[in-house]
Amino acid sequence: MEKCHEKVIFSHLCDSNFTLRIMFEDKDARTELSKLGEFGLIKHLAEHIKLGNPSSVKGIGDDAAVIQFENGKQTVVTTDMLLEGVHFDLSYCPMKHLGYKAVSVNVSDIYAMNASPKQILVSIAVSNRFSLEAIEELYAGMLLACEKHGVDLVGGDTNSSRSGLIISITAIGEVDKNDIVYRSGAKPGNLLCVSGDLGSAYLGLQILEREKKIFMENPQIQPDMEGNDYLLERQLKPEARKDIIEQLKENGIRPTSMIDISDGLASETLHLCTESNVGCRLYENKIPIDQIAMLRAQEFNLNPTMCALSGGEDYELLFTIEIKDHDKVKKCKDVIIIGHITEKAEGANLVLTGTEMLTPLTAQGWDALLKK
Amino acid sequence: MEKCHEKVIFSHLCDSNFTLRIMFEDKDARTELSKLGEFGLIKHLAEHIKLGNPSSVKGIGDDAAVIQFENGKQTVVTTDMLLEGVHFDLSYCPMKHLGYKAVSVNVSDIYAMNASPKQILVSIAVSNRFSLEAIEELYAGMLLACEKHGVDLVGGDTNSSRSGLIISITAIGEVDKNDIVYRSGAKPGNLLCVSGDLGSAYLGLQILEREKKIFMENPQIQPDMEGNDYLLERQLKPEARKDIIEQLKENGIRPTSMIDISDGLASETLHLCTESNVGCRLYENKIPIDQIAMLRAQEFNLNPTMCALSGGEDYELLFTIEIKDHDKVKKCKDVIIIGHITEKAEGANLVLTGTEMLTPLTAQGWDALLKK
Repeated sequence: MEKCHEKVIFSHLCDSNFTLRIMFEDKDARTELSKLGEFGLIKHLAEHIKLGNPSSVKGIGDDAAVIQFENGKQTVVTTDMLLEGVHFDLSYCPMKHLGYKAVSVNVSDIYAMNASPKQILVSIAVSNRFSLEAIEELYAGMLLACEKHGVDLVGGDTNSSRSGLIISITAIGEVDKNDIVYRSGAKPGNLLCVSGDLGSAYLGLQILEREKKIFMENPQIQPDMEGNDYLLERQLKPEARKDIIEQLKENGIRPTSMIDISDGLASETLHLCTESNVGCRLYENKIPIDQIAMLRAQEFNLNPTMCALSGGEDYELLFTIEIKDHDKVKKCKDVIIIGHITEKAEGANLVLTGTEMLTPLTAQGWDALLKK
Repeated sequence: MEKCHEKVIFSHLCDSNFTLRIMFEDKDARTELSKLGEFGLIKHLAEHIKLGNPSSVKGIGDDAAVIQFENGKQTVVTTDMLLEGVHFDLSYCPMKHLGYKAVSVNVSDIYAMNASPKQILVSIAVSNRFSLEAIEELYAGMLLACEKHGVDLVGGDTNSSRSGLIISITAIGEVDKNDIVYRSGAKPGNLLCVSGDLGSAYLGLQILEREKKIFMENPQIQPDMEGNDYLLERQLKPEARKDIIEQLKENGIRPTSMIDISDGLASETLHLCTESNVGCRLYENKIPIDQIAMLRAQEFNLNPTMCALSGGEDYELLFTIEIKDHDKVKKCKDVIIIGHITEKAEGANLVLTGTEMLTPLTAQGWDALLKK
């Protein structure tokens, strides 16, 4: 049944408008990983990997990768681990999407430093449940994301897992010393801005979990994904906002602080305030929420604002700018101002729509999403 | 029983001459990780972490760590994942030792590039089986290794695991462009050298596995670790060979190729030969094997040469030098010449002791260790 279940939901996603390049065609072939062994697997995967950046001096094939950035550049490094059963569920997350997402969430952290991602290292642990073809799909998704962000896959590690799939990615980027943006630079009077819209990824997850539950209870019922493509894509194939970093540069804006939204708007805003030693005022009616997300939140009896504040996995950029950059930021597509920075003593507050009342921002985490 | 078993073997190791600095004393206290949450855990661990290298611009606390090496330096990066039940067994591997080993095996890859390790990022996944105190022990071991190698812990990720403990470490080092040593530079006529001794870590593992088995069958029998301290340490607390890299530099030797020994002498020699497009002749009677290892191999009915060739986890350095450096290498402590590089057509061969017969080197892997 598990197998059948996977097929049903997978087939929907293949119909969605996420047209991943098909690098490996024959879906029914199953090659056991044990046939290749670790070195064989690395060699096989490496055949599809080319280096594109001048800074990638040496990729896969030695004890370590070698990188050389231009003189004066700083190196930024971040790492994230994704675990099956904790961060993803393979019954509705296709391997290609998973690979794409694993790279996206890492390069998102590089953009959040106002830097450009250049290299990644990928470690995976897999059990014999996975075929070579499944691993190829995973890497196809990773390489597609690499291509999109101009990143080279320069190294990693492959291991046996006794339980589920584990992916650990380290992303490396470069930035001019003067361009780097920390979480700690926000000042009272700065404007608080965010890209894209929030809460959609969380609602996409709710839909996938609901359809999985229905399917597990009655395998005859086909998953109802109708009209939810956008929310599903936000969950399964998040896009790191390279375009926002580029627009900020084009418009001559250097944010005073920046962070990417992985845990939800509330948690990330509090990080900026804590690290910058400031308070903020965030306007509920300014928080960007997609129309479909609004509708689905109502269906799930969830408060859309809470989905945006605490849902997480949006991978949008949250940043502060000087007030003098107000007109410049207005020119940036897909960026809106949602509040401003205050003195620390005023605290970090949400201005509720309608009432104009202030309520302290709190990082609720996923489990605490309040019912509407 | 599991708990009791752990205590017995642990207590031996506490008596051994591995005197890890006791950062956290109260062994009986058990603080649940759920009490702190992810951010609480990171904050707590970060309190013990200080940056020491000028190149570590920003450590834990932002979206990414920031590094700036001197102009002209190249950056080397490597990553390794360790999984409970695959790479380590917590019934005989204390958390402190495990932390120390996890860092050692990563910086060993940096030394193998003739580079100096400077930063690491550490990702872990833990279940609620682990207490805060256990995680503190793990980090105490990691920080001890960091101190020894002059490395800063600048970032990472903490996650929940549904099964065992997972540790993924990325190590970053720097090297002058002209000093870097790849696997691919060996030339016919070069001398093949190795540091330390080989096979001991594998025999240490055999002893631990044997004593575990005896204990599981009869918990009344105390593990017999007598006289095996050296072998146990080689397995549980391997040392990355910083001293060898320093000696080579002091003596004006730049190896033509280098690799660290994680999978066994045979496998690594074959890597050097393949990458350098050469053959080699390796003399069995030159392979450095410790006296205790010799004795224990006999007890286990194992061929000591096979333990050295295929046992692995020695984390010694295997390298080639130009013949003109023969006299210089003789001055290096704990380094010996075990063979020489030949034309590719001659193949990679082992010269058997006594017979002077040649036998092709093969990478047997752990499962294939031949009985004597």
